[in-house]
Amino acid sequence: MGLPLMDSQPEVTKCGFSLNEHEKLSETASVLKDAAACSGIFLRGLPPNQDVLLTPPMTLFPVLLPEQPLQRILDLQTHINLLQHRIAHDKSFLVSTLQGAASVDPFTRNLLHIYQQVDVDDQLELGLIRSDYMLHQIDGKQRPFDITKSAEYSYKQVEVNMQCVGLAGLSAMVNGVHNQVLKFLDGKKVDRPHAIESLELYGGGLRLAYEAYLKEYSTQTGRPPVLLIVVHDGFEFNINDQRLIEFESKLPAIRRSFRQIGQNIRLDSRNRKLIVEEREVAVVYYRTGYAPSQYSEEDWDTRLMMEQSKAVKCPTVAHQLSGTKKMQQELARPGVLQQFIQDANVRRSLTETFVGQWDISKKEAEDVIQHALDNPDRYVLKPNREGGGNNHFRQELITKIKEVRGTPEAQNYILMELIRPPTQENYLVQPNREPEAAITVSEVGVFGAIVAKGAKILYNASGRDVLIRCKASNILEGGFASGNSCISSSCVV
Amino acid sequence: MGLPLMDSQPEVTKCGFSLNEHEKLSETASVLKDAAACSGIFLRGLPPNQDVLLTPPMTLFPVLLPEQPLQRILDLQTHINLLQHRIAHDKSFLVSTLQGAASVDPFTRNLLHIYQQVDVDDQLELGLIRSDYMLHQIDGKQRPFDITKSAEYSYKQVEVNMQCVGLAGLSAMVNGVHNQVLKFLDGKKVDRPHAIESLELYGGGLRLAYEAYLKEYSTQTGRPPVLLIVVHDGFEFNINDQRLIEFESKLPAIRRSFRQIGQNIRLDSRNRKLIVEEREVAVVYYRTGYAPSQYSEEDWDTRLMMEQSKAVKCPTVAHQLSGTKKMQQELARPGVLQQFIQDANVRRSLTETFVGQWDISKKEAEDVIQHALDNPDRYVLKPNREGGGNNHFRQELITKIKEVRGTPEAQNYILMELIRPPTQENYLVQPNREPEAAITVSEVGVFGAIVAKGAKILYNASGRDVLIRCKASNILEGGFASGNSCISSSCVV
Repeated sequence: MGLPLMDSQPEVTKCGFSLNEHEKLSETASVLKDAAACSGIFLRGLPPNQDVLLTPPMTLFPVLLPEQPLQRILDLQTHINLLQHRIAHDKSFLVSTLQGAASVDPFTRNLLHIYQQVDVDDQLELGLIRSDYMLHQIDGKQRPFDITKSAEYSYKQVEVNMQCVGLAGLSAMVNGVHNQVLKFLDGKKVDRPHAIESLELYGGGLRLAYEAYLKEYSTQTGRPPVLLIVVHDGFEFNINDQRLIEFESKLPAIRRSFRQIGQNIRLDSRNRKLIVEEREVAVVYYRTGYAPSQYSEEDWDTRLMMEQSKAVKCPTVAHQLSGTKKMQQELARPGVLQQFIQDANVRRSLTETFVGQWDISKKEAEDVIQHALDNPDRYVLKPNREGGGNNHFRQELITKIKEVRGTPEAQNYILMELIRPPTQENYLVQPNREPEAAITVSEVGVFGAIVAKGAKILYNASGRDVLIRCKASNILEGGFASGNSCISSSCVV
Repeated sequence: MGLPLMDSQPEVTKCGFSLNEHEKLSETASVLKDAAACSGIFLRGLPPNQDVLLTPPMTLFPVLLPEQPLQRILDLQTHINLLQHRIAHDKSFLVSTLQGAASVDPFTRNLLHIYQQVDVDDQLELGLIRSDYMLHQIDGKQRPFDITKSAEYSYKQVEVNMQCVGLAGLSAMVNGVHNQVLKFLDGKKVDRPHAIESLELYGGGLRLAYEAYLKEYSTQTGRPPVLLIVVHDGFEFNINDQRLIEFESKLPAIRRSFRQIGQNIRLDSRNRKLIVEEREVAVVYYRTGYAPSQYSEEDWDTRLMMEQSKAVKCPTVAHQLSGTKKMQQELARPGVLQQFIQDANVRRSLTETFVGQWDISKKEAEDVIQHALDNPDRYVLKPNREGGGNNHFRQELITKIKEVRGTPEAQNYILMELIRPPTQENYLVQPNREPEAAITVSEVGVFGAIVAKGAKILYNASGRDVLIRCKASNILEGGFASGNSCISSSCVV
């Protein structure tokens, strides 16, 4: 697959547009905000202000990405899709890897409990996946990005997201917005069309899953089966992204919370069809369910019933568990990858993206733990759970390690080498604030989609565009939802 | 030109979706609002809340339009473009028609003053035009729209807009939004692609004007000439529409107020090139300037300088004056149209769209004036100025006629028959309010574009999609800007 290489224009993020002039900067930021709104990029306000929209935090300019390392992680994504699917179906591997964490963490325990009540090989599954990476310089030092030294950079995996993967919709639009900004500044024209491929990948993935369901199970009488989007009970921060994917799928869809579903759900006893509000459900698309706080006790029963049904789940519990940090850590151990990936080249490429990862409950990690306590700024401590946030850095890392070390709790944590990506100058544009010049670092997300039934792979693909989130380099914890990250687009150099 | 005829689905605006259930209605309205925001439809908040966006007032369902009458006004638009251009260049006709109004109205006087200082035949002109119509039933009675009686309807012209024509951008997107709503409700699929033709017509019109300028005048050294968008000093209510057209034009553009332009404007004495902020201006696109309050005394000097330059104006003062109500009234007089339109069929079609119009300063209008005073609900009194608002209905009409009758002020007013369009049921969806069922009437806008230099017509075209504004039938004065109208899309039946 070829990269959508643009005219190189490294100067754009070097703020070479005399934006020191306050008025010019302000005018440029308003082009960005208007172009974003015109492209359908927005955040919806919290109730009771849900009719108020804001432009999400964005960078003023695209982020420069080095071509070769980027191409390598794009090429890896379909292999990662397969890998995640395979480990989700290797019951003994999955259970043994997670049982320690499950013994101390009720959330992992609940998911594993459902997993063990379902015949995972006899069900249609949809994976909408995103692998996150940060750029790493061979010597591990943090300094400004230098395009003349492309060969010295490689991408390191931060995590693989299997559940509630966000921003495939939003990310897709940001390119066009940055094009408007560059044009306004007489920047070199960026000859790339609106990159909506990840949006198509995700909307199309839902559609393929729906069609696979129709083919396999549906009797197609009366109203068509529905795509059930499972959402929070409360505020939907990211409704824009969710709706874009929903609309792109072109499927009849309803959005319901676990609680709403629980009030009107049943399994057809004859054929395990999932019926919600008297409508047959073809696909269940979770946009919640990755954190313990998102489930009441009844919601776990609801989830179990959905998992036991014939409806295609995105993701199944099996897929969801494959994205936990413990799995990532286990796969990084020598020899493990070999069980799942035959191709030695793919294994090598993938392994190159791994940073050091250790189970702090294990004896063999003692030396590394000591090194981390002495050099806390070179590590991050993560709980097993999927998704960003909840990580421990610096003093907090020391405190947490001391707290759990030697207790069963330690089994729930993974110690990882901290990636220190090169920096780039940019401007951060946020609602109700003046644009701010900043030294930034960025994270790159590669989108993947897979439809499968046990060993039978019906679809396996990756997006060509990537998600860029950008934050001030002095902020440790990124995350778009937490407000620390700005979305951006890429300029491949 | 063929109409984009849809699968007829009259039921959609008959609220046949059991939307009486409050939850279902609320869910449907949220699909509308999200789809609108995802399509890039928004209103920007007033400073200091300019970072806050809202969804504009919209109807929940498309408006039904009868095919034959609609086809007739679509077919007329290129002739109207030509007509407006021709009367703008018939100096004696234009001056004699407007001198009465100019004698009492400083605004018309100022425009006419500029008109007389410019060689209107020796300049490139761009007209971005919109003709507004309302449906009229032969017997003039107001009752619910009945698609089985298509033959009894015809469209009557409300006005021809020549300056700051809005909503070509927004209107274009509403179709897609209504498609999402109908799909959500399992409505019959509307097999019409996103209709962005009027947006293309306007963005493309600006581009053609720009290219005509380059071809005719530019020496093309250094930075490319710029598209200068002239905007309010204050709040831009309709920034969405303006930006969509700007972005669609793909031209290098700057947005400036009259005041800002006045601070840094000059005419190159050798060649009458317009220079603003040391950049050559190829096209001046007014999005303000249709009301007296929008000009300071200095702004009139700025406008004069722009009119005297070689830059293409949209519109020129000549085009602007051709859109005044006095011209419309004069054209409705027997025999007048003949001076400008040779084709008798076109003349007949156009005349059929005219309602009765009278100059209340003229003796021959006495009988009609008396009839209006006795039946004020059958007339509307309009000032000469272009644009909606400022009209007098009912008791206000009586008061105003009595006030100005017999004085020179009367020359500034036009008495028009009131069109009473058939009604349709719909829901009005407005920010921060529950959706409201309403008996509505609607106005249809047909977009046109013309590029010309004197008698030489370089481009003359019309849009295929139309603008629909919809309001509760018991509200007299519509207008999107005044908050009384909801934008909508059309369902041709």
